[in-house]
Amino acid sequence: MEIILTVEWMKQVSRLARGEGRLSGLVPTMGALHEGHVSLIRAAQQECSPVTASIFVNPAQFAPGEDFERYPRRFDADAALLESLGVEYLFAPEAAELYPPGFSSYVKVEGLGSRLEGRSRPGHFRGVATVVLKLLEIVQPWRAYFGRKDAQQARIIQQLVRDFHLDAQIEVCPIVREADGLALSSRNAYLSPEDRRAATALHRALGAAQAALGRGERNPANLAAAMREVISAEPRAAADYVEVVRADTFEPATRLSGECYALLAVFFGTTRLLDNMLIVEAGGGFRCEI
Amino acid sequence: MEIILTVEWMKQVSRLARGEGRLSGLVPTMGALHEGHVSLIRAAQQECSPVTASIFVNPAQFAPGEDFERYPRRFDADAALLESLGVEYLFAPEAAELYPPGFSSYVKVEGLGSRLEGRSRPGHFRGVATVVLKLLEIVQPWRAYFGRKDAQQARIIQQLVRDFHLDAQIEVCPIVREADGLALSSRNAYLSPEDRRAATALHRALGAAQAALGRGERNPANLAAAMREVISAEPRAAADYVEVVRADTFEPATRLSGECYALLAVFFGTTRLLDNMLIVEAGGGFRCEI
Repeated sequence: MEIILTVEWMKQVSRLARGEGRLSGLVPTMGALHEGHVSLIRAAQQECSPVTASIFVNPAQFAPGEDFERYPRRFDADAALLESLGVEYLFAPEAAELYPPGFSSYVKVEGLGSRLEGRSRPGHFRGVATVVLKLLEIVQPWRAYFGRKDAQQARIIQQLVRDFHLDAQIEVCPIVREADGLALSSRNAYLSPEDRRAATALHRALGAAQAALGRGERNPANLAAAMREVISAEPRAAADYVEVVRADTFEPATRLSGECYALLAVFFGTTRLLDNMLIVEAGGGFRCEI
Repeated sequence: MEIILTVEWMKQVSRLARGEGRLSGLVPTMGALHEGHVSLIRAAQQECSPVTASIFVNPAQFAPGEDFERYPRRFDADAALLESLGVEYLFAPEAAELYPPGFSSYVKVEGLGSRLEGRSRPGHFRGVATVVLKLLEIVQPWRAYFGRKDAQQARIIQQLVRDFHLDAQIEVCPIVREADGLALSSRNAYLSPEDRRAATALHRALGAAQAALGRGERNPANLAAAMREVISAEPRAAADYVEVVRADTFEPATRLSGECYALLAVFFGTTRLLDNMLIVEAGGGFRCEI
């Protein structure tokens, strides 16, 4: 595996792969890799060659007062893992390489980017959209892979790619969970043992919505209420938002149809965790992807 | 000349040219072509093949109440002119082709984009940056050509290209003027005969700054004052801004050094015209490009 630190060299490598007609894949990460990231790498390797992973803790997507400084960083272990997986290139620029003095251009996906996560974390999606556009321009992948745990982020990136006519295909991969249902996240490392146990409430809440759906409940407000009940019953949990939204706009679903997300953002102490379930209308009914 | 109406077809054509290793050039316009545009086409033809011109009156760069509706449109004459010049492709999408339903991503170049024109025309540069990024993605030119009359726009586009690591080179071409010095602009067509005569005040103001520079004046504030005097003496002119700024940041120049712009935005009736002069430190003195 080649570790690439500069934009210029990464562009050179990308240009070469492109010139050879290779179908390259990109897995952008902030490091602190877990099995969720591994699943993205594996998905990329199924379809692409070469595969580039990036590790970049993007300062622009952390709001003031968020956990940029303490976000887990373990570059050597991450690089060793990526190498063992057979990743061809690891793009790992310093912050000043992507945001040199004078840097001043930002992308904003309006509407989509202002709801839910966007409302709770002002500036977050502006930072995400900006860095992802940069990475797509630098690596020029045929496909780029994102996890469905950050469903709103993935949707915003799809919109960005569409709006700027980029060639990259955005692939959204299933959530990877611990045995007890907790969705993998680098931020799980922040949890105390008590909060770690309590954090299964996210998955249990989704299960409650799924069960209600199974009983014939079709009112999005009632599905959200079923999730809220589980979160309220967990004394260590404090809900930020618990919603059922349309998967295209992330606006509140007034009725179930097409594709919807049941979405949660919940605090355990100072750690904020996300989870979601995709609800897909199919064959006269609905199936859930948790 | 092939007239291309859709993004998909333009991308196809661009991909082909790129795949053949051709050095393609792009001249983005809003139509109502004049000799300034012709000079951009000629510059592109000197260096590039194929040359693509675009005609797109970009709704996103007009603030509410501006002249989007009445902006001069004469597609057939423009297309005939481009064909006679030997342009290979004319990209002329409808507004809904570049801004389909659901479109929601915008680029903003902060700092640079908020001064001068950005302050006078809120949202203008956000619209410019957004459409230029789209055009660069669609046409993938080796070089793209812009006129120096819109100096701040050209600088913003250079920053955009740098910040998103695009491959396109941005070429900024000299201002083309009428015999009496008025810089060519599609908006000159709005001028009454009286305002047309008065509008030479822009060029005369730049001449006054140049003359002051020739007399040894080095204080940017005094150069700006010399320009303002000319504008004030013209009863049909109402200055929006008259400034000497640094060419890299468009912040007010506190002293002359490196490259600076003497910049004006002046109303004649409801028509707002721009002009500028580049002041370049060279060989212990300063030379002017009007």
